[in-house]
Amino acid sequence: MKHGLGIPDSEFVRGDIPMTKQEIRILTLAKAKIGSADTVIDIGAGTGSLSIEAALLAEQGRVIAIEREPEGFDLIKVNATKFKAANVEAVLGAAPEALEGLPAADVIMIGGSGGKLPEILRCADKLLKPGGRLIVTAVTVETLSTTLNIMRQRSEYSVEACCIQVTRIQQVGASNMFKALNPIYIIACSKKG
Amino acid sequence: MKHGLGIPDSEFVRGDIPMTKQEIRILTLAKAKIGSADTVIDIGAGTGSLSIEAALLAEQGRVIAIEREPEGFDLIKVNATKFKAANVEAVLGAAPEALEGLPAADVIMIGGSGGKLPEILRCADKLLKPGGRLIVTAVTVETLSTTLNIMRQRSEYSVEACCIQVTRIQQVGASNMFKALNPIYIIACSKKG
Amino acid sequence: MKHGLGIPDSEFVRGDIPMTKQEIRILTLAKAKIGSADTVIDIGAGTGSLSIEAALLAEQGRVIAIEREPEGFDLIKVNATKFKAANVEAVLGAAPEALEGLPAADVIMIGGSGGKLPEILRCADKLLKPGGRLIVTAVTVETLSTTLNIMRQRSEYSVEACCIQVTRIQQVGASNMFKALNPIYIIACSKKG
Amino acid sequence: MKHGLGIPDSEFVRGDIPMTKQEIRILTLAKAKIGSADTVIDIGAGTGSLSIEAALLAEQGRVIAIEREPEGFDLIKVNATKFKAANVEAVLGAAPEALEGLPAADVIMIGGSGGKLPEILRCADKLLKPGGRLIVTAVTVETLSTTLNIMRQRSEYSVEACCIQVTRIQQVGASNMFKALNPIYIIACSKKG
Repeated sequence: MKHGLGIPDSEFVRGDIPMTKQEIRILTLAKAKIGSADTVIDIGAGTGSLSIEAALLAEQGRVIAIEREPEGFDLIKVNATKFKAANVEAVLGAAPEALEGLPAADVIMIGGSGGKLPEILRCADKLLKPGGRLIVTAVTVETLSTTLNIMRQRSEYSVEACCIQVTRIQQVGASNMFKALNPIYIIACSKKG
Repeated sequence: MKHGLGIPDSEFVRGDIPMTKQEIRILTLAKAKIGSADTVIDIGAGTGSLSIEAALLAEQGRVIAIEREPEGFDLIKVNATKFKAANVEAVLGAAPEALEGLPAADVIMIGGSGGKLPEILRCADKLLKPGGRLIVTAVTVETLSTTLNIMRQRSEYSVEACCIQVTRIQQVGASNMFKALNPIYIIACSKKG
Repeated sequence: MKHGLGIPDSEFVRGDIPMTKQEIRILTLAKAKIGSADTVIDIGAGTGSLSIEAALLAEQGRVIAIEREPEGFDLIKVNATKFKAANVEAVLGAAPEALEGLPAADVIMIGGSGGKLPEILRCADKLLKPGGRLIVTAVTVETLSTTLNIMRQRSEYSVEACCIQVTRIQQVGASNMFKALNPIYIIACSKKG
Repeated sequence: MKHGLGIPDSEFVRGDIPMTKQEIRILTLAKAKIGSADTVIDIGAGTGSLSIEAALLAEQGRVIAIEREPEGFDLIKVNATKFKAANVEAVLGAAPEALEGLPAADVIMIGGSGGKLPEILRCADKLLKPGGRLIVTAVTVETLSTTLNIMRQRSEYSVEACCIQVTRIQQVGASNMFKALNPIYIIACSKKG
C-alpha cells in the first residue's frame, strides 16, 4: 500500500478552480488506504489533484473522477496527462446521478456534494465494497454535521473525524510569516469487511 | 477598567494597510488592562484601530500612535476623528527614534517593529512605568522568539504568551463556510509594581 | 460599556467542573456587549466564571446563573462571594424549565444545553428584549450546527460566528512549548431593536 | 515511493513516552519522501513510531533510531518486533555524540534535540547525502526559530515549513466534541542533488 505522493500544489494546472492543498491530499489518501489495484471514485474532483495522486497509488486500479463544472472536467484531463495517470477517467456530471452504472468501489472520496449529500451518501454506500473506505472532506458546518449524523448511525461503519488546520510559514524578507489555510474536516468511514 | 469595545472591523477606514482584526483587538486590549487615565503608546499603529479603541477606554488618558507609513499616519487621524477619539495623538515616524521624548507610559503595545525589535524593547522598558504592561503582537517567528527570548530574561517582568487562531464562519448560500484568519501571537509582559 | 475583565483562570474556585478559559470569556463578553444596567441570563453557568465577569460589567444590573449540577451551583455562589459580585443569582436547575418566570433579558448566554438546545433557543428568544444579544458557545458539532441552523432562519436576528483556537505558550526549562486548548465556537446573535 | 502507512496510534506500545500522533507521522514521512532503499536516521525517536513506519516504507533500506531515554530505547525494540520492522536499529544515546560513525543518510528526521540543536544540525548536514531530506518536527518556539534561522542561511537547502494543528472529533454520547492536539511545526529541508 502507498499513501500520498506529496506532489507540490504548484505542479498542478488549476485555473480558477479551488484545489485541495498538499497536506490535506496526503492525509486524505493515507486515511483512504488506497491499494495498488483499487477502484476509486472521486466525487467533486475539482482540478483532479486528489484523483491523480490516487491513480498513481492505485497503479493497477482505476480512478473515476466526477466533476460537474466543465472547467474542472477539462483540468482533470490536462492534469492526468501531465502526470501520466492513464487510469483516471474524468466524468462530466453531478452526483448522485453521475454515480449510476459505476462499478463497485474500494474507496469513495467526496470533496463536493452540491447540496445533495444525503442522497450521495446513500448511493455511495451501495457502491462501496465491504471493507471499503468512504472519505468526506468538509469545508462547511453543514457537510461536517450531515456526514457525522448520517454515518454515525450506520452500524456497519466505523467513523473517525478530525479537523486539520495548516499554517504555511513563508519567508518575507528576513522574517518567517504565518499564513493560515482554511481548516478542513476529514471524516473517514470504514465499512466492515 | 474597561477592556475592548468590540467595534466591527468594517467600521474603520483602512485603505491598503493591514489591520488587527476585531477578536485580536479585544484580547490585546484586555491583556493590556487599560485604565481610564492611562498613558498608552502604540508602536506600529497601522490604521489606528487598536489606538482608537485604547483611547476610548483610556477616556481621561492619552494614546500616542506611532506609524512610519504616511498612509497609515493619515488613516489614524481619519479614524480618530470618525470615532471621536480626541485623545489619540498620531506621530509619523519609526521606533525606536520616534520614542524619544515621549512621556512615561502605563501601557506600551508593539504591533510592528521594522526589524528593530531588540532596540524597541529596550526603549520601551525605559518608558514603561512600574506596574505597566507591555504587549507585543507577533505575526512572524522572529518577533515571537525575539520577544520571548528578551522578556523571559528580565526578572522584573512576568510574561505570558499565547497564539490566537480565529476562523470566521461565513454564510455562503445555504452553507456556513470556515474561513481562517492568520494566527496572531500575543505576548503580555507585566512589569512589577 | 465595559467588556471583559480578564480575570486569570486560576483565581476562580473550580473543583472538577469544566471552565470557560480566560480568552474565551473575554471574547464572549465583548460580543455580548454587556451594558452597566443589563439583565443577563447565563444558561449552563458551570463554575460561574462567565456569570461573575458579566456581573462585574453589569454593575447596576443583575446576572441569573443557571446550572443543573449541584457542584457547579455551589461554586457559582463561592466565586460570586470571592469576587464580590452580589448581583449574581445562582439558580439550581435545567433549562428550559429553569427559564420559566425569569425577567426579560438584555443578554442571554448559553454555554450548556443538556441536549435541549432547540427548546432553549425558543425560550431564549421569548425572554430576549429587542436589541438584545444571544451568545452561544459551542464545543460540539451538534451545538454549532443546530444553533446556526435555527438562528440563521430567524430574520429578526443578525448572526455572526467564529471559532477561537487558543494555544498557550508555556515555559518548560529554557523552552517555550505550545499547548493547545480545545477550540470553541462562538455564535453571536443580535436581535433587531 | 511510499509515504506513511497510517498505523493507528493505539497500536504502538508507548508507556509514558510522548508519541508523534498519526496525522503528523503521515505528513512527516510524506515530506521526507522516503525511498524503498533509503538509509534513514531518526534523532529523538521516542517510542519509535516514526522510525517503524519509516522502516516499513524503506523496506530494502535501514532506519537508525537514536533515543537517549532507556525506556524509549526499549520501546523502539518492542515496537519494531511487533510490526516486524527488522531493519530498525535502536541506538541508546544522545545526539550529536551518537551520530558519530553513522553512515551517510538519505533522510534525517529530528524529533528531539536535548538543547543541542545547532550542533545536531551541523552534524546532520555532514551525514546527509546530496539530494537528501532533513525534517525537523518542533513543539517549541526555540526549535522552530533555531531551525529556520540556521537552515534558511544554508544556500544548498530549500526549506519549507508549516504548522499542523489537528483537532480530533470524539463521540461523547450523542455529541461530537472537538479535542485539540498540540500544534506541531514541520520544517522540511531538501539538500540540492
